[in-house]
Amino acid sequence: MERPALDLGLDAAALTAQLVDIPSVSGSEQPLADAVEEALRTLPHLRVDRHGNNVVARTALGRAERVVLAGHIDTVPVAGNLPSRLDEDGQLWGCGTCDMKSGVAVQLRIAATVPVPNRDLTFVFYDNEEVEAERNGLRHLAAEHPGWLAGDFAVLLEPSGGQVEGGCQGTLRVLLRLPGQRAHSARGWLGENAIHAAAPVLRRLAEYEPRRPVIDGLEYHEGLNAVRIEGGVAGNVIPDECVVTVNYRYAPDRGEEEALAHVREVFADCAVAEFTVDDHSPGALPGLSHPAARAFIEAVGGEARPKFGWTDVSRFSALGVPAVNYGPGEPNLAHKRDERVDTAKIAHCEERLRNWLS
Amino acid sequence: MERPALDLGLDAAALTAQLVDIPSVSGSEQPLADAVEEALRTLPHLRVDRHGNNVVARTALGRAERVVLAGHIDTVPVAGNLPSRLDEDGQLWGCGTCDMKSGVAVQLRIAATVPVPNRDLTFVFYDNEEVEAERNGLRHLAAEHPGWLAGDFAVLLEPSGGQVEGGCQGTLRVLLRLPGQRAHSARGWLGENAIHAAAPVLRRLAEYEPRRPVIDGLEYHEGLNAVRIEGGVAGNVIPDECVVTVNYRYAPDRGEEEALAHVREVFADCAVAEFTVDDHSPGALPGLSHPAARAFIEAVGGEARPKFGWTDVSRFSALGVPAVNYGPGEPNLAHKRDERVDTAKIAHCEERLRNWLS
Repeated sequence: MERPALDLGLDAAALTAQLVDIPSVSGSEQPLADAVEEALRTLPHLRVDRHGNNVVARTALGRAERVVLAGHIDTVPVAGNLPSRLDEDGQLWGCGTCDMKSGVAVQLRIAATVPVPNRDLTFVFYDNEEVEAERNGLRHLAAEHPGWLAGDFAVLLEPSGGQVEGGCQGTLRVLLRLPGQRAHSARGWLGENAIHAAAPVLRRLAEYEPRRPVIDGLEYHEGLNAVRIEGGVAGNVIPDECVVTVNYRYAPDRGEEEALAHVREVFADCAVAEFTVDDHSPGALPGLSHPAARAFIEAVGGEARPKFGWTDVSRFSALGVPAVNYGPGEPNLAHKRDERVDTAKIAHCEERLRNWLS
Repeated sequence: MERPALDLGLDAAALTAQLVDIPSVSGSEQPLADAVEEALRTLPHLRVDRHGNNVVARTALGRAERVVLAGHIDTVPVAGNLPSRLDEDGQLWGCGTCDMKSGVAVQLRIAATVPVPNRDLTFVFYDNEEVEAERNGLRHLAAEHPGWLAGDFAVLLEPSGGQVEGGCQGTLRVLLRLPGQRAHSARGWLGENAIHAAAPVLRRLAEYEPRRPVIDGLEYHEGLNAVRIEGGVAGNVIPDECVVTVNYRYAPDRGEEEALAHVREVFADCAVAEFTVDDHSPGALPGLSHPAARAFIEAVGGEARPKFGWTDVSRFSALGVPAVNYGPGEPNLAHKRDERVDTAKIAHCEERLRNWLS
């Protein structure tokens, strides 16, 4: 099979279309990783490394600061929306246009067109961001080659509508088990109905008032939601177990233990027999008071917003690298069949980053 | 695979253990139906017929009356309580001991040991009693071979604690659908959580006060219970649907329409988008004033009680055959992990029936 080649001489919008037309659903990133690596190896000012389908390219100019520009190359499953299509209004349609091959195109354009940046640059292209955390390429790089990710400040080119998004909320998923006692439903009074026992849990959830703390000037918005409920043995049996799975999205002023303690406290008097943590990823503080972050915001303009969803800024944060999201895609269009990106925003984003780094 | 064989020469308690040790959860009755058919075919005084996993055996002595002895051969799902175990106090433990393989053992013992009964006898062994009415073997027999079920009086050997139970409560199962609106759980406030919307339904169930009407001198005891709850799309999605399945057990002074109207009324202000009837079997009035029922009660002794659970007496009742429940199991122990039967009661039940029929 002929390997698709990327042309870094194209503008970022046309390059986005090239990237989109090399499908790279999570787990199938190799052809695109090969193309990215091949394109970067044509640039003599960069050192290129690869680990699996993760590609890292770096300048080594001995600058006082190093900035990391990072993006994932995988997409959610294609939904009949490939190949890409550019309409008359400058909208580029297709799977990955928004999340986040337009961001990847900007990274590649900066790599190709800013050979002598004012800060040392590291470009990170990684796989498996759209699937479970264990497969995440950035996680693997952090574990195997932490040095490749070193820097003073990181920008993830995730869709953020061309605005800077600081920090991210943590996410905790907990299974709440309500116990009961089985009996034939014809003589229900001999048993204890575990589904009925979930009534106070659901009521507490329905009445829950989430916090909206302001951190570094950004207003976060927490949430506590049931994402699953399961109970029942058979159509004529009083069930002896009901499990409610709750997802707590929490502002980054709370740590992991605090978050779990909060969930336990909310349901303290609801007769929950067991709390089991199913999944937990901490948040990241916005870190907008950090000099590198401030300089970046001044350079690209606009007003910073909080990030409600969990993103890989949290992973950089854990490595001690303050990080923000800044990318051309609209977050509301990610993962949709009618996914698209405004090509004007891609050009705008590329220009702002080039100005900051030149 | 070797087919398990039943030994009709054993006493009814040992035969119960044999039956219990051939698992027969609803839908998987074939091995047990095969064993029952094979055992009955060794008895030359019986004509044996089979339809699916339903087996019917009859005498043809030209007696003035014909009595039907009926029992289901299926059980609820095994709950770690097999194989059977006989303790020092003569309690036989295990799935199906009480509901109702002890009754089936009594049927088989009467079939084997009363070759010349004073009334013609029909033995009915049927499948799928513990699941939805559409699958019920007695229903299929009534539809396909009504002649096989003909008789002047029927005894179902369902667990009744060795006492005669008249009539039975109706059972109605309804799915209550609560709607919501999907959203990413990181921005839960953009959706509507269908699981939270079930809180008023569960609360209503937890607070429900059942009726206890007296009919023909028997006090019934109704019940309204959730038997299943399901909701959830993915670990990070606000669910747009939650379905609560409720089971209403109602006294036989209520008809089918009245029962459904009651369920709708109970949840009238709980924002239920849809009520779907999943299963419905009406009750049967006790009918203890019928001569055949009175004669039977005099013969076996004791005092008649109401039947809380729905049983197939209702089906015989609909075919014009007066029917009662009379079996060795304790109804309170049916469908429990610690299901068991007192072997003394099995012997007692067998003896009373033999006396009546000899």
